[in-house]
Amino acid sequence: MLQFAQFGAGRIGAIHAANLAASGQAALRHVVDVNAAAAAGLAARHGARVSTTEEALTDPEVGAVIIASSTDTHAALVIAAAEAGKAIFCEKPIDLSLARVDAAIAAVEAAGVPMLVGFNRRFDPDFAALRRRIAEGAIGTVEQVVVTSRDPGLPPIDYLKVSGGQFRDMTIHDFDMARWLLDEEPVEVFAYGAALVDPAVAAVGDIDSCMVLLRTASGRMAHINNSRRAAYGYDQRIEVHGSLGRLMAGNRTPTTVELANTAAVSTDTPLHFFLERYAEAYRIELAAFVAAVAAGVPMPVGAADGRQALVLADAALLSLRERRPVRVGEIA
Amino acid sequence: MLQFAQFGAGRIGAIHAANLAASGQAALRHVVDVNAAAAAGLAARHGARVSTTEEALTDPEVGAVIIASSTDTHAALVIAAAEAGKAIFCEKPIDLSLARVDAAIAAVEAAGVPMLVGFNRRFDPDFAALRRRIAEGAIGTVEQVVVTSRDPGLPPIDYLKVSGGQFRDMTIHDFDMARWLLDEEPVEVFAYGAALVDPAVAAVGDIDSCMVLLRTASGRMAHINNSRRAAYGYDQRIEVHGSLGRLMAGNRTPTTVELANTAAVSTDTPLHFFLERYAEAYRIELAAFVAAVAAGVPMPVGAADGRQALVLADAALLSLRERRPVRVGEIA
Amino acid sequence: MLQFAQFGAGRIGAIHAANLAASGQAALRHVVDVNAAAAAGLAARHGARVSTTEEALTDPEVGAVIIASSTDTHAALVIAAAEAGKAIFCEKPIDLSLARVDAAIAAVEAAGVPMLVGFNRRFDPDFAALRRRIAEGAIGTVEQVVVTSRDPGLPPIDYLKVSGGQFRDMTIHDFDMARWLLDEEPVEVFAYGAALVDPAVAAVGDIDSCMVLLRTASGRMAHINNSRRAAYGYDQRIEVHGSLGRLMAGNRTPTTVELANTAAVSTDTPLHFFLERYAEAYRIELAAFVAAVAAGVPMPVGAADGRQALVLADAALLSLRERRPVRVGEIA
Amino acid sequence: MLQFAQFGAGRIGAIHAANLAASGQAALRHVVDVNAAAAAGLAARHGARVSTTEEALTDPEVGAVIIASSTDTHAALVIAAAEAGKAIFCEKPIDLSLARVDAAIAAVEAAGVPMLVGFNRRFDPDFAALRRRIAEGAIGTVEQVVVTSRDPGLPPIDYLKVSGGQFRDMTIHDFDMARWLLDEEPVEVFAYGAALVDPAVAAVGDIDSCMVLLRTASGRMAHINNSRRAAYGYDQRIEVHGSLGRLMAGNRTPTTVELANTAAVSTDTPLHFFLERYAEAYRIELAAFVAAVAAGVPMPVGAADGRQALVLADAALLSLRERRPVRVGEIA
Repeated sequence: MLQFAQFGAGRIGAIHAANLAASGQAALRHVVDVNAAAAAGLAARHGARVSTTEEALTDPEVGAVIIASSTDTHAALVIAAAEAGKAIFCEKPIDLSLARVDAAIAAVEAAGVPMLVGFNRRFDPDFAALRRRIAEGAIGTVEQVVVTSRDPGLPPIDYLKVSGGQFRDMTIHDFDMARWLLDEEPVEVFAYGAALVDPAVAAVGDIDSCMVLLRTASGRMAHINNSRRAAYGYDQRIEVHGSLGRLMAGNRTPTTVELANTAAVSTDTPLHFFLERYAEAYRIELAAFVAAVAAGVPMPVGAADGRQALVLADAALLSLRERRPVRVGEIA
Repeated sequence: MLQFAQFGAGRIGAIHAANLAASGQAALRHVVDVNAAAAAGLAARHGARVSTTEEALTDPEVGAVIIASSTDTHAALVIAAAEAGKAIFCEKPIDLSLARVDAAIAAVEAAGVPMLVGFNRRFDPDFAALRRRIAEGAIGTVEQVVVTSRDPGLPPIDYLKVSGGQFRDMTIHDFDMARWLLDEEPVEVFAYGAALVDPAVAAVGDIDSCMVLLRTASGRMAHINNSRRAAYGYDQRIEVHGSLGRLMAGNRTPTTVELANTAAVSTDTPLHFFLERYAEAYRIELAAFVAAVAAGVPMPVGAADGRQALVLADAALLSLRERRPVRVGEIA
Repeated sequence: MLQFAQFGAGRIGAIHAANLAASGQAALRHVVDVNAAAAAGLAARHGARVSTTEEALTDPEVGAVIIASSTDTHAALVIAAAEAGKAIFCEKPIDLSLARVDAAIAAVEAAGVPMLVGFNRRFDPDFAALRRRIAEGAIGTVEQVVVTSRDPGLPPIDYLKVSGGQFRDMTIHDFDMARWLLDEEPVEVFAYGAALVDPAVAAVGDIDSCMVLLRTASGRMAHINNSRRAAYGYDQRIEVHGSLGRLMAGNRTPTTVELANTAAVSTDTPLHFFLERYAEAYRIELAAFVAAVAAGVPMPVGAADGRQALVLADAALLSLRERRPVRVGEIA
Repeated sequence: MLQFAQFGAGRIGAIHAANLAASGQAALRHVVDVNAAAAAGLAARHGARVSTTEEALTDPEVGAVIIASSTDTHAALVIAAAEAGKAIFCEKPIDLSLARVDAAIAAVEAAGVPMLVGFNRRFDPDFAALRRRIAEGAIGTVEQVVVTSRDPGLPPIDYLKVSGGQFRDMTIHDFDMARWLLDEEPVEVFAYGAALVDPAVAAVGDIDSCMVLLRTASGRMAHINNSRRAAYGYDQRIEVHGSLGRLMAGNRTPTTVELANTAAVSTDTPLHFFLERYAEAYRIELAAFVAAVAAGVPMPVGAADGRQALVLADAALLSLRERRPVRVGEIA
């Protein structure tokens, strides 16, 4: 049974630890977190010990690590874990700086350890079905992808200050979806963005609403729209138009209940946020990691995917700043 | 161009007259109504004259009649029109009494004139598609039919007094749908009914809510539920379950607009009532009548259908009164 | 932590044991099954021991039992567990004979132990939301309930022989839903039934398709339709019509993916069968049992509910045989 | 009753003539078409005469004209009709050249005659409901608009040669929708386009697929996606996201019928093309024109709207050619 050390005992860390416990295929051995109380709580809940990074990485029983700590610690932990020969499950993004991402990837490659980058949406049953049916030929050649992705509400401004900005923090998931479903690498990005939700966002140099276009060499196109605030909750939809038809995946709701009264016929708003919407995706993602480690096969989403989504985010940011389309080659 | 005399210048009469005018295949020549003002208004609108029954039926230019007057006048008008050799479009029911229905049908058969009974729902594009797809084998052998039919609001109590009761006035349409879609004649009926909407309905000896079961000789089953009042509007849905699948036809709405906000995701309530919901059905129904007269082919829904739906209604009423299943043969 | 003995290591037993393990609030201590291999497998999976009924019930550490063995063993196990002072989670039905049900209930009451009867659908998030919203007044006074419940395919004929028949084996869940949502006790039942799916069903004296009506004292009505075979999968829908509106709960699907092509716009068929459709309901059901035992509060669905659903099933069977509506008082 | 002269007896001309006849508020007096047979057929159908342009425009009984001839004749006819003092209903676009559009508008203004430009989608009940509900405040401040607009199939290449290109011929409707629903004038346009459907389209210098972004001064954004070919039919959807919620309007289908079988749950593809999808919109549009002429009030969609949509189309074309965002002021 694969033994894990986990870095980060916060919200997403708790999800991964619970999924580990329920999988029956792996066990949590070390929890590392600067917040001692959080580490202790999570360790106690799953029969693990609270450790330092060094203790965790030098334990020969540990075969894999989960990196779910704050973004600025990811790259150094990836490098240390790679050097220690551990399989790596790293939450996105690897880093906000491409240079540090490249350093981390170099260490992973040098060590020859497997690494999965946490693009959880690839494991969402709905989006995975889109990809599978495209691969099966259900809609012929892909021509257009439309990704709608809106959060239920603005995060704290203090979070935004260290988030890397909307493109790197939020849209990065959508860039990954667009790449994955276009079935051909985007070569150019154009972006509009604004702080429409709250002027405080503009005050810290960020945006909260954006619309992006991507283009591939053969002319395929993708559109992404984002908002940091949707009154009706977490809006996660993807549409793919191809030569033989159209695929769409929509929101999930708490119940299927429909009420009809004098005013309207009404149904539930979508599942609240990513923890609810992607609960199943997180479970499948971790299981896929454990299975790939066990089988010694390539990771379903790897370091190069993590890097390329960041490149697209950086290209979008440059496009917004310079008010022009940016070729991916300018960034990478 | 087929020339019509129309009896009845009320709400449904106005619909038929307008459809006649728009069809381009027929013309309205006489309007007959005890309400002189209504007759004059409708006649003026469509370039027809106000006439007596005798004038209308003795006019050799008249090839067909529309009987859309009050129910108690239908049977006599059918007989008179048949004796005058006119093709007959008669609103349902032919009469509330089976004996008078039989007399009317005898006159029609003796005269050899064609007669269509106004079961407009057979011409509704949704329900007609159910029937067509059953005939095409889309769901194999029909096993169960569920008809949901609720009105938006209670009619005036004075109307209920002369309506013949819920089964003959309202459920009669659903009996026709059930017969048509079961694809086999019902042989037995069981009914529950109550005045749940308004005790004034019970006070005039009627019900406003009912649930009915029908059974065919081979064991196929149908369920009908009715209410005289649905807060959300006119609810007209049919489901057919067969050996290879299920067909459902649902409500139509004024728009496809969906609003998502903090409270819910909401859409329009159904089209208000039969004039809106079945506007297209009335148009197609009249066109089918005109076409069948022109082609000299049998009517798509005839006198026997009108009679049989009334037989089922009478069986339901007997079932409710005697608290037992009633075989159709007890009535017919 | 509540310690359990579980009787029955089959399909539904495995579900309950897994839910116990994942709950973190309870532990499985004994597994009892006539199939030694099944017992050993389940016990091994959850760190429990294989025991005899006597060993399990005399263990003072055991606070509760799960009875998920074959139906004919339920009543005796309920009585033995009650006498041993254990809290009881009993799969439906308690027994196929009302007399034995009454004996079991008498033992439970004499012992003063809590008992939950496994009507899992009450814990389904969709149906539970129907009930909650009715209680909140969303649709005013309930007038009509329509329960649609179709299985994906016919079980083996050998199973049908010992099942107690469609009403007691399958419709019993729907009788419970109808009672629960009508918000008033049914006083009369009328049923049609036939073997439309397979004549082999008739050959063993059973039916595979039925339509049932229920009536309460104040005139509320419910309709249930069942089929043992739906080509499109497990069809579980409920509609409740009230004075202020209508509530509906529909099927759940594996994904939200919609494909539009030349032929149609198409979506997934429903989740395959009860293990998939009610996975969440089973989890919530067991948690509710554990919580009620811990808090010493009444069970959310008790022995009387188990009995009353069986009474309605028996009334339906009598109605089918005698071709007449049957008053509940004739059975109870 | 308003008397009309109509220029153009083709497909869209036949729609307008039929709507005129059915309106009861107007009459067709002259039909003008270079295709003598088409003119004669349409004139005969509606009791009008075949005339020359001069005969039609000098007839003092004529109060209004419908210009539904080929695009290259629109501007000259608008000028002639304006000089003749007739109210003008002109199909979009007024012209493919902004200079000629301006000349036509100048003539209309000089003559002081009313002119409606045929942006039929403003009269579609679904899209009109979006606009009305935005105006009512249902979603607060508009932030993002997404317009999806795909045709069922590629028109003949010969048509494309004279169409003015996808932006001016097809996207122009979507530019109008975006302007109308953004509730603030776009100031910048960026476009991607390609011939993904058929290389023959590229061979004539056109595109068949595009994605466009629009931006307003305050930062609101709109996205338009177009394809000349959707396997599943005519796809016309609009989504508007605002500070308080989201509005969406979807496709209309021939029936509401849903089929569930072993393979899928499937419904109809959308209504085939614009004649079917916008039949009601065309009817309402013409009635709005007649009503505005009768009341002497401003047209609901006027010459300036026609011009501005063309400006956006020209900006998109320049953006595509020069691979940069284009400010509207560069064009206008």
